[in-house]
Amino acid sequence: MATIKEVAEAAGVSIATVSRMINQNGYVSNEAEKRIAAAMEQLAYESPLARRLAGQNMPAIALMLPDITNPFFAELARAVEDTCQQQGCVVFFCNSDHQDFKEKSYLEVLRKRHIDGVIFASNYLPQEELNKLEQHRIPVVVLDRSSDTQKCSLIRSNNYEGAQMAVKHLMDTGCRKIAHIYGPQEIATAKERMNGYEDYVKSFPWYTPSLMAPGMFLMEGGIQAVDTLLHRHPDIDGIFAGNDLMAIGVLKALHRKGVRVPDDISVCGFDGIKLGEIIEPELTTIAQPIYEMGKCAANILIKQIKSKNDKALLEIIEMNVSLHIRDSTRKDSEEQ
Amino acid sequence: MATIKEVAEAAGVSIATVSRMINQNGYVSNEAEKRIAAAMEQLAYESPLARRLAGQNMPAIALMLPDITNPFFAELARAVEDTCQQQGCVVFFCNSDHQDFKEKSYLEVLRKRHIDGVIFASNYLPQEELNKLEQHRIPVVVLDRSSDTQKCSLIRSNNYEGAQMAVKHLMDTGCRKIAHIYGPQEIATAKERMNGYEDYVKSFPWYTPSLMAPGMFLMEGGIQAVDTLLHRHPDIDGIFAGNDLMAIGVLKALHRKGVRVPDDISVCGFDGIKLGEIIEPELTTIAQPIYEMGKCAANILIKQIKSKNDKALLEIIEMNVSLHIRDSTRKDSEEQ
Repeated sequence: MATIKEVAEAAGVSIATVSRMINQNGYVSNEAEKRIAAAMEQLAYESPLARRLAGQNMPAIALMLPDITNPFFAELARAVEDTCQQQGCVVFFCNSDHQDFKEKSYLEVLRKRHIDGVIFASNYLPQEELNKLEQHRIPVVVLDRSSDTQKCSLIRSNNYEGAQMAVKHLMDTGCRKIAHIYGPQEIATAKERMNGYEDYVKSFPWYTPSLMAPGMFLMEGGIQAVDTLLHRHPDIDGIFAGNDLMAIGVLKALHRKGVRVPDDISVCGFDGIKLGEIIEPELTTIAQPIYEMGKCAANILIKQIKSKNDKALLEIIEMNVSLHIRDSTRKDSEEQ
Repeated sequence: MATIKEVAEAAGVSIATVSRMINQNGYVSNEAEKRIAAAMEQLAYESPLARRLAGQNMPAIALMLPDITNPFFAELARAVEDTCQQQGCVVFFCNSDHQDFKEKSYLEVLRKRHIDGVIFASNYLPQEELNKLEQHRIPVVVLDRSSDTQKCSLIRSNNYEGAQMAVKHLMDTGCRKIAHIYGPQEIATAKERMNGYEDYVKSFPWYTPSLMAPGMFLMEGGIQAVDTLLHRHPDIDGIFAGNDLMAIGVLKALHRKGVRVPDDISVCGFDGIKLGEIIEPELTTIAQPIYEMGKCAANILIKQIKSKNDKALLEIIEMNVSLHIRDSTRKDSEEQ
């Protein structure tokens, strides 16, 4: 973070002149003002004035998403955008594609173009990058991901408990051999949902680790996982997919194989995206409060921007998920 | 567009000094270099050096989308992003939400933060805004929209012909009373598809304008339009929806009403989004080459950025659509 002294040196003026300009108090020549403003912008000097020069009172934040084609993130984006618009702020969406080098490129470009804040709904956020953002006093909110650091606010939902709700619902409605399709294990949410499943089922005699298969959080991954799982265990009668996109792939794959849902196999997803109500059969799922999560993240970030990134405002919020019972799971308990 | 003279004045140095720095040839003191660089950035002076200072060899472009939750635009975004990544360029996505004031806000913020180029897949692009972008020598490519201006490149597909292909297919497979659900009429693509439908069917005795209903290019709009249309004309046996999202809404609404697709009513969409292959029945559609369109737009824009926005490079490209026959329309002609 640049000091007033550095700005003064870069602009070739005295510290007192820079100070007069910052405070908008006392005479500063036009030429000096231009040079100081330019130096401030170049050095990423953060002051209300420099910010005004970059964005003229229209702050810009970035929302880093791992996959713009996943409706879960499109719905999150919708909420972040609505909230920002109400507060006179624009949002740029960045699609990291689960690739750390893309996140690094984005962050570098964003810093150089004076972004005012970043919401991270993506996988990586290495300490080094977080430090750079902090140096530039750019506040960060982490959304739907874990964070080991105390340096930024965090909004997430209780994935572990949600996964257990899913498995309990499948068992309550008569399933006796439940498989799990999990997302990329480097993503905290995927890991927590898998742990929730495993801890719930591991004491049952039917459980074996080969009831778990990867689906990459993608629709295609769900389709492929069904092949793997039914080949290993033709007697599966319930599938808990770690996100709705994979669950929709599961429904497609089962339909192609002539397997009836929920009569032969019940399916439960996780997320609560709108698409789950459009497909047939409509998808039972563990719904996150997607809109609320996005809104909350945007509000916290904007509050931090307005407070000049006051660390006292850091918050950690865990939201509750809820079971939405639709047509892809059975209605009545058969036994139990 | 700032001149070298203005840069020299702002930086308090001679024109010769600025020139030496631009050409990276001859002595320039560190302090002068800093001041010149800062002045260039402030004045939006466009040179390879100023660009390097803003983005350090990593150009940034913006893709303005009308609706980030429509998979058509998510798939376009995917293509633009892949292409940009190959060329060492980052993309920011902007969601205009069909609102002109949002587009204006975005463009202002983008200009102030030294965006290198803009792809417009959104509704509005007033001449005034285009002029401002031109002043800043920021090249623009218009994608999937019409443009009355000769100032930017344009990539689109033949919507009118595609609509006629859709109606012809429905008639060839036995439909005798075909309705149309249209998108917002201020969007050129929606209007062209509607014109294609109307010109094809208007000479048939069964045709009446009340066979057309609005669906806003949204899934919910498609669902509502089905109510309107079946109330007016219970004997409809074919529906051509102006985009896939509305067509998917139509399938949902018909399923809820117990109407069989395609036995009772055939449904054809437009766009060719992947979701059309996931739902049941799979959607017959007029497919645009979505990925090719996005790739082409990104390549043309990057070429213009590299050529310093050379107007000689302006291109107008119209791509061909194609009929993808799936399960939502009948296979065989019944008569004709």
